[in-house]
Amino acid sequence: MSEQGKAPSESAIEQNVYKVFPNDLNSKYTVFGGLVMSLCDRTALIVAERHSGAPCVTAAVDSLNFVGPARAGDTLIIKAAVNRSWRSSMEIGVHVAAENSHTGESRHVVSAYLTFVALDDAGKPQAVPPVTPESTVEKRRFEEAGQRRQQRL
Amino acid sequence: MSEQGKAPSESAIEQNVYKVFPNDLNSKYTVFGGLVMSLCDRTALIVAERHSGAPCVTAAVDSLNFVGPARAGDTLIIKAAVNRSWRSSMEIGVHVAAENSHTGESRHVVSAYLTFVALDDAGKPQAVPPVTPESTVEKRRFEEAGQRRQQRL
Amino acid sequence: MSEQGKAPSESAIEQNVYKVFPNDLNSKYTVFGGLVMSLCDRTALIVAERHSGAPCVTAAVDSLNFVGPARAGDTLIIKAAVNRSWRSSMEIGVHVAAENSHTGESRHVVSAYLTFVALDDAGKPQAVPPVTPESTVEKRRFEEAGQRRQQRL
Amino acid sequence: MSEQGKAPSESAIEQNVYKVFPNDLNSKYTVFGGLVMSLCDRTALIVAERHSGAPCVTAAVDSLNFVGPARAGDTLIIKAAVNRSWRSSMEIGVHVAAENSHTGESRHVVSAYLTFVALDDAGKPQAVPPVTPESTVEKRRFEEAGQRRQQRL
Amino acid sequence: MSEQGKAPSESAIEQNVYKVFPNDLNSKYTVFGGLVMSLCDRTALIVAERHSGAPCVTAAVDSLNFVGPARAGDTLIIKAAVNRSWRSSMEIGVHVAAENSHTGESRHVVSAYLTFVALDDAGKPQAVPPVTPESTVEKRRFEEAGQRRQQRL
Amino acid sequence: MSEQGKAPSESAIEQNVYKVFPNDLNSKYTVFGGLVMSLCDRTALIVAERHSGAPCVTAAVDSLNFVGPARAGDTLIIKAAVNRSWRSSMEIGVHVAAENSHTGESRHVVSAYLTFVALDDAGKPQAVPPVTPESTVEKRRFEEAGQRRQQRL
Repeated sequence: MSEQGKAPSESAIEQNVYKVFPNDLNSKYTVFGGLVMSLCDRTALIVAERHSGAPCVTAAVDSLNFVGPARAGDTLIIKAAVNRSWRSSMEIGVHVAAENSHTGESRHVVSAYLTFVALDDAGKPQAVPPVTPESTVEKRRFEEAGQRRQQRL
Repeated sequence: MSEQGKAPSESAIEQNVYKVFPNDLNSKYTVFGGLVMSLCDRTALIVAERHSGAPCVTAAVDSLNFVGPARAGDTLIIKAAVNRSWRSSMEIGVHVAAENSHTGESRHVVSAYLTFVALDDAGKPQAVPPVTPESTVEKRRFEEAGQRRQQRL
Repeated sequence: MSEQGKAPSESAIEQNVYKVFPNDLNSKYTVFGGLVMSLCDRTALIVAERHSGAPCVTAAVDSLNFVGPARAGDTLIIKAAVNRSWRSSMEIGVHVAAENSHTGESRHVVSAYLTFVALDDAGKPQAVPPVTPESTVEKRRFEEAGQRRQQRL
Repeated sequence: MSEQGKAPSESAIEQNVYKVFPNDLNSKYTVFGGLVMSLCDRTALIVAERHSGAPCVTAAVDSLNFVGPARAGDTLIIKAAVNRSWRSSMEIGVHVAAENSHTGESRHVVSAYLTFVALDDAGKPQAVPPVTPESTVEKRRFEEAGQRRQQRL
Repeated sequence: MSEQGKAPSESAIEQNVYKVFPNDLNSKYTVFGGLVMSLCDRTALIVAERHSGAPCVTAAVDSLNFVGPARAGDTLIIKAAVNRSWRSSMEIGVHVAAENSHTGESRHVVSAYLTFVALDDAGKPQAVPPVTPESTVEKRRFEEAGQRRQQRL
Repeated sequence: MSEQGKAPSESAIEQNVYKVFPNDLNSKYTVFGGLVMSLCDRTALIVAERHSGAPCVTAAVDSLNFVGPARAGDTLIIKAAVNRSWRSSMEIGVHVAAENSHTGESRHVVSAYLTFVALDDAGKPQAVPPVTPESTVEKRRFEEAGQRRQQRL
């Protein structure tokens, strides 16, 4: 689609929020894993579509780790950014925190890496713009995404 | 709860996102009003709980205007900030835009003002911190919130 | 569409019911504002489509006030009727009560006024029938709807 | 609970409404049977709790027949009334119509008979008031409910 | 569609599972009847479409009896099989058990018989394959389905 | 909890089914990744609770790969089994196929590995039974689960 690179900040989502509902809780009163996975996927999908300018589909969850539980009353704060792209695929990094909106306290809940593929009108993979990392953090993520891909292949 | 004012930026939500689903569409393929209302309420509630540091309930939708339609494939971008507070109540302003994530184009969909009340452990209204507007926009919103309240009373 | 007026009773909904579910409750065990807004919108939409004989979309929530809380186990009883119409828009009044189905006791929960617009096949606003109020209550609502519109303009 | 009979009109629901959503449709664009069953159960449950003044649970669907399909854009109109009661159980009759809100045309979609049981605080069946049919229709339903019960036993 | 019979085992579902969520519970902490009905319908529909090789719609719930309650934390185990077919309709039997996944204990919750009709491209009923029962249980179910149909007609 | 091993077949789920709904589809008419993730999590959770006899929480999605798309009308067939356990954690393998219920054709959609942890009453990790693989396939999965764990550490 484009030869020109785009910075992660052009497509990043800084603060998608989700208030935990009673139905989201298991018998230990912590949030179901499946809900958090679904929120990660939905948020990352928007980043992928912003970066590629095309409809995207999830190709893989490369890893998704629960660092700590989210509980009733918590507000989940979901951040997502593109780390690196290849011909038609992109690695999106997602970070989920659980905020107690009353105290302002925030805990890390999930870190995840998902791969999305951009599709053309015929539903075939189409080229996506390269990622041009700018900040130190973005450059580190760019490097690490390359290493993760090497390990998977 | 607090004598000390808090700036709107301490509790604002800049970018809550919601990707429109097929089930959100009416027979004209535009998003149901009730879904947008519900998203405004959920987002504003988090702002109210952040500002007050207490559980809050919706007291009123003072106005909520649909400026334009949202459609299939759009990503709704919801922003919310506290405009002004009184003893135990807060006016939260909400702005919803519909973004075409492929082109980056964004259209204004809804403007809304909601009033929330903070509750103590017994479920009675409790005092909330004053709002200390800082930017020119925040100061204008603070003034206008006062005028809207005068008109309602 | 029609030159001939229609009485509010021809399109009114007297008893839409919704049994409160656990997922509808916040941490204070009262019903989320967003759910009630959504129920008001869905019920009023049917009244607007009955009155106009056309697909309608929500144009505005002019006001929606929470008079008292609804709780777990309550049955919400939603009533809606058209108060007045203008060229292509209609004001629908909505009243929500919370009934304890075991005791029969009923409390007023919400009063709301919403504006809907009727659309033609091309998605453009189309004319709707005038409202012909018949009862004393309908005539009062008709007058007040005119005053509310004046204030908004 | 009570020796004194109650008329069906004291607990009946005349007009519960549900606007069909895209997600409610199968590949033939007619409404899923499971959705209609669920609406029948929810509406009948409220009637049973009104009649008995106690929490109730579904004991059986004695029959539920689809007379015709409901489609996209239809508004389902659900009516429910208690036909007869025995010691702790009640037969609730449910009628579902599909209304085209634009034309006002209405078609019969479902007829159903469900049995509910009233429970005391310990979760055991508790006595419910007898049904005192008043109109000719109510008297016929009362008789037929007795015959249906005979056939089942 | 087919002259040749198919055995129930070719289309049966042995172990559809559903973990009960908080939102599925009424005030007595047992599962809503409507949820179980909906699960029965969804599971039986797949069996009907497998047997007929065509889109199917629910024609009737002939009976659905709650033998015991399902509670929070239970896993519902839903089994469904075709018992017998007529020209274009099929009786599907459904059995629901509630399993405590921690202890492995399982209780019978619901038995149900539903009738589905297969549709052709024009939405008209189309012929379905006969059922060829093989095991003793399948042969008994085949006979009983015939008796139930006689009673209904 | 137990010193004695349990075979994977004692807790495996062979045929959890999910019929795809319109709301599950993106603009390319394929199923949202988040839905499939959520189904994998819910099914695997039941296997983990069966194997451990205790409440479990998701610790990680180690990998989840979309092999092909699922589409409108498909029935998802989800299989899950425990591959190996360590002190308090278990790797559950999940396989999702998309079945066209009319033709019987089935395509592989997703392969996933998830790690769950069993919790005691205080919410702390508790020991789980060893996995005793019996068939050749179970033995291979047991070995590979060990290798995957080595790579992650």
